[in-house]
Amino acid sequence: MKAVYPGSFDPVHNGHIDIIERAAKIFDEVIVAVALNREKKALLTCEERVGLLKEACRHLANVTVDYFEGLLVDYAQRVGAPVVVRGLRAISDFEYELQMALTNKRLNEKIEMMFIMASGEHSFIGSSIIKELAGLKAPLNGLVPPAVEKLLKTKLQRKRAGGGA
Amino acid sequence: MKAVYPGSFDPVHNGHIDIIERAAKIFDEVIVAVALNREKKALLTCEERVGLLKEACRHLANVTVDYFEGLLVDYAQRVGAPVVVRGLRAISDFEYELQMALTNKRLNEKIEMMFIMASGEHSFIGSSIIKELAGLKAPLNGLVPPAVEKLLKTKLQRKRAGGGA
Amino acid sequence: MKAVYPGSFDPVHNGHIDIIERAAKIFDEVIVAVALNREKKALLTCEERVGLLKEACRHLANVTVDYFEGLLVDYAQRVGAPVVVRGLRAISDFEYELQMALTNKRLNEKIEMMFIMASGEHSFIGSSIIKELAGLKAPLNGLVPPAVEKLLKTKLQRKRAGGGA
Amino acid sequence: MKAVYPGSFDPVHNGHIDIIERAAKIFDEVIVAVALNREKKALLTCEERVGLLKEACRHLANVTVDYFEGLLVDYAQRVGAPVVVRGLRAISDFEYELQMALTNKRLNEKIEMMFIMASGEHSFIGSSIIKELAGLKAPLNGLVPPAVEKLLKTKLQRKRAGGGA
Amino acid sequence: MKAVYPGSFDPVHNGHIDIIERAAKIFDEVIVAVALNREKKALLTCEERVGLLKEACRHLANVTVDYFEGLLVDYAQRVGAPVVVRGLRAISDFEYELQMALTNKRLNEKIEMMFIMASGEHSFIGSSIIKELAGLKAPLNGLVPPAVEKLLKTKLQRKRAGGGA
Amino acid sequence: MKAVYPGSFDPVHNGHIDIIERAAKIFDEVIVAVALNREKKALLTCEERVGLLKEACRHLANVTVDYFEGLLVDYAQRVGAPVVVRGLRAISDFEYELQMALTNKRLNEKIEMMFIMASGEHSFIGSSIIKELAGLKAPLNGLVPPAVEKLLKTKLQRKRAGGGA
Repeated sequence: MKAVYPGSFDPVHNGHIDIIERAAKIFDEVIVAVALNREKKALLTCEERVGLLKEACRHLANVTVDYFEGLLVDYAQRVGAPVVVRGLRAISDFEYELQMALTNKRLNEKIEMMFIMASGEHSFIGSSIIKELAGLKAPLNGLVPPAVEKLLKTKLQRKRAGGGA
Repeated sequence: MKAVYPGSFDPVHNGHIDIIERAAKIFDEVIVAVALNREKKALLTCEERVGLLKEACRHLANVTVDYFEGLLVDYAQRVGAPVVVRGLRAISDFEYELQMALTNKRLNEKIEMMFIMASGEHSFIGSSIIKELAGLKAPLNGLVPPAVEKLLKTKLQRKRAGGGA
Repeated sequence: MKAVYPGSFDPVHNGHIDIIERAAKIFDEVIVAVALNREKKALLTCEERVGLLKEACRHLANVTVDYFEGLLVDYAQRVGAPVVVRGLRAISDFEYELQMALTNKRLNEKIEMMFIMASGEHSFIGSSIIKELAGLKAPLNGLVPPAVEKLLKTKLQRKRAGGGA
Repeated sequence: MKAVYPGSFDPVHNGHIDIIERAAKIFDEVIVAVALNREKKALLTCEERVGLLKEACRHLANVTVDYFEGLLVDYAQRVGAPVVVRGLRAISDFEYELQMALTNKRLNEKIEMMFIMASGEHSFIGSSIIKELAGLKAPLNGLVPPAVEKLLKTKLQRKRAGGGA
Repeated sequence: MKAVYPGSFDPVHNGHIDIIERAAKIFDEVIVAVALNREKKALLTCEERVGLLKEACRHLANVTVDYFEGLLVDYAQRVGAPVVVRGLRAISDFEYELQMALTNKRLNEKIEMMFIMASGEHSFIGSSIIKELAGLKAPLNGLVPPAVEKLLKTKLQRKRAGGGA
Repeated sequence: MKAVYPGSFDPVHNGHIDIIERAAKIFDEVIVAVALNREKKALLTCEERVGLLKEACRHLANVTVDYFEGLLVDYAQRVGAPVVVRGLRAISDFEYELQMALTNKRLNEKIEMMFIMASGEHSFIGSSIIKELAGLKAPLNGLVPPAVEKLLKTKLQRKRAGGGA
């Protein structure tokens, strides 16, 4: 069984990696797929996000990294994955994910969404807080892979030097 | 991949059957397992619950029905199922399931719990409300399989005749 | 338009009365209806609950008090009330009420449920906490009508004298 | 009794229409009122929103469509409607609506807010997800009236052609 | 500043001890107080609960253990503690604690309640799940102090031997 | 014991002042600290926010007003405050605050966060709704100190005159 694990991954953090590792034990093949959305401003480019994910998943033989635009259910069908995996951390996640699950079911009944609960130690990590902490120059070790911390530092210094809000 | 779908199933309802059918498409084999708990009073006996489940799952070739006492993770390991499937309907479900998922992970790291969101049409069904409605003689068609409705009627009439609170 | 405001009212408290007064301004006629449920142990008898409600609603000309057994939607249809009014205090209320609203809609599409948010000052009052406070001999003024406080005191003293858990 | 059903309606969807139809059965007259807010960027103009609503409500004899700026309670009082109707879908709705209900009560005690729970089939529809789906060219039938789907398509193509974020 | 940390402590678990240790750093003196409630059936006697708490808090010089019946605010005032400390784990906790905080404020304005968030690793521990796990003979190390695990084992074996539900 | 009460205070409202007054009774010294965040657009300048807070806290002898940039835990440590106080109003607050509490604990274990529940009458006030109401020219008496209402009026008129969105 092939599964897609979609997300913005802007940037990938250790909570994501925990879900990827656990999904990789359950499914024969896991495709981690960066969802590109022109309406949402991202800090990292598609290439950066894919690159960081590839590095973070190098130890997982049955995991590949990809990206897509458009509807998630169309992408999952195109790559032949009948299952979409998502992590659940908190109540606010729950409501959004429930809405997306019901919407996706309506768009394509054949694609099934399955959810994994974030481990306690990762339940408070999210990409927004990672970026906020990075902006405040807080140490990120234990929250993101080293390559992510390094790239965020460079990115945010450049942004500051160049002005910004 | 083998998966266990545990529950009280007191009684099984159409929301359960929806989850079983969807799990049966994802996993090679699904074991629906009645969890027996001496501390909780059940309306139906273990035999009745297993019987109703067997009838309700007859159309699903890769689904079997079983029961167990003791820890869920011990049972899953014993039958060789690395995945436990659970349905999620509402926020209150979410918190309880999160607590159980974290507890089970602590007891046995090798067993992974995965969650499926109830379909909109089943999101309000639960075994308690089914029993409450049956007690008020409300029609249950569309909420439970016909055999469940029939058994509940007999059970609750007998209970009333025999006294009871 | 006639509306039913159902509840256990075990006992009625000032949060209920706030909802009744507000419903009485919107609807031509409001029937406050004590829902009897043999499965749930009540502190007060049906007569006591109806009596306390009648006293508490005496100042509202278009409000009557009644009681019923069985399905709420059957009762509402029987008394010719196409609307059922319920108060909402908190998240836990919300989920239960949503479940009941969807169930009732399924049982009888013609009966509509409408909800009023509890005022801030009443949002923490509930019949359970009233009984708990009364059991601890806390003053209840401002939380329930005087007649309720008086009856609860008598009831709980008698219960204690006679043994009890 | 006259009731106002206010909202952004950017655009109206089938969940809104369900609430309007149910409110129209309870109240003598329902005014669906587009709330204009200069601070929030809308996809559709006021005229477009009012036009789509008028078309969607043509089958409801006691429903009219209007728009307003400023405080909702001032508008309700101006048109002589002592009741404001709102739909409730999810927990996040609940908290926002509770906050608005308490605020409005403080601003004008005479205006009462009443809530209707969204039907299960509409509980996952919202204007934001409709726009997101339209942007991804997903089919919208069953989610919005045909005229809305048509206008969204035209709007979003023009936006894309003209550049945009 | 003196603070009371009240609870059922049936039994004390590591989540409680984490809150006690953190409160002991903030306040000059912390009184851990077992709240006795005749209406709720407890597994452990008052003496057992106090004894286990004393053992668990032996390393904390400014912590004492006590018990009380009646209203929490009366107890806090009696022992001269203007602050009551409570732990918060989850949403369901939050609603109950908010209700209690508002009720206690109404009963005695001078007593202030303050809340500490449970650490991620303890967020899923509660006395009910501890008892459920003990009943299923699951290992409890890491969840409760060793003395608690030992007593629970003895208690539950005796209960089983003597019959029980 | 010294405590920091951080916030955006854009602007300070009566719910904040309630928390400050209650914290001032518990701790020897309370530093109300405006958190500056270059990423978030504020309506009021740092000077305005500090000025309004100073005026609002003039009656509290052990309260001082300050501002800071960077990590909250760094600021608390710098001023020698081992405790950070926050108010809790609603579920959405709860999740965000839990995330921040766990993050801060990770950044600096020595700083402890403590929470106070907003009083019922203030539970619906927030800086966003205050600004929204001010923009709609609603009366703000009872929601904010008079000086805040006056400044908001001037600010928003100037903004409107100068164009704005």
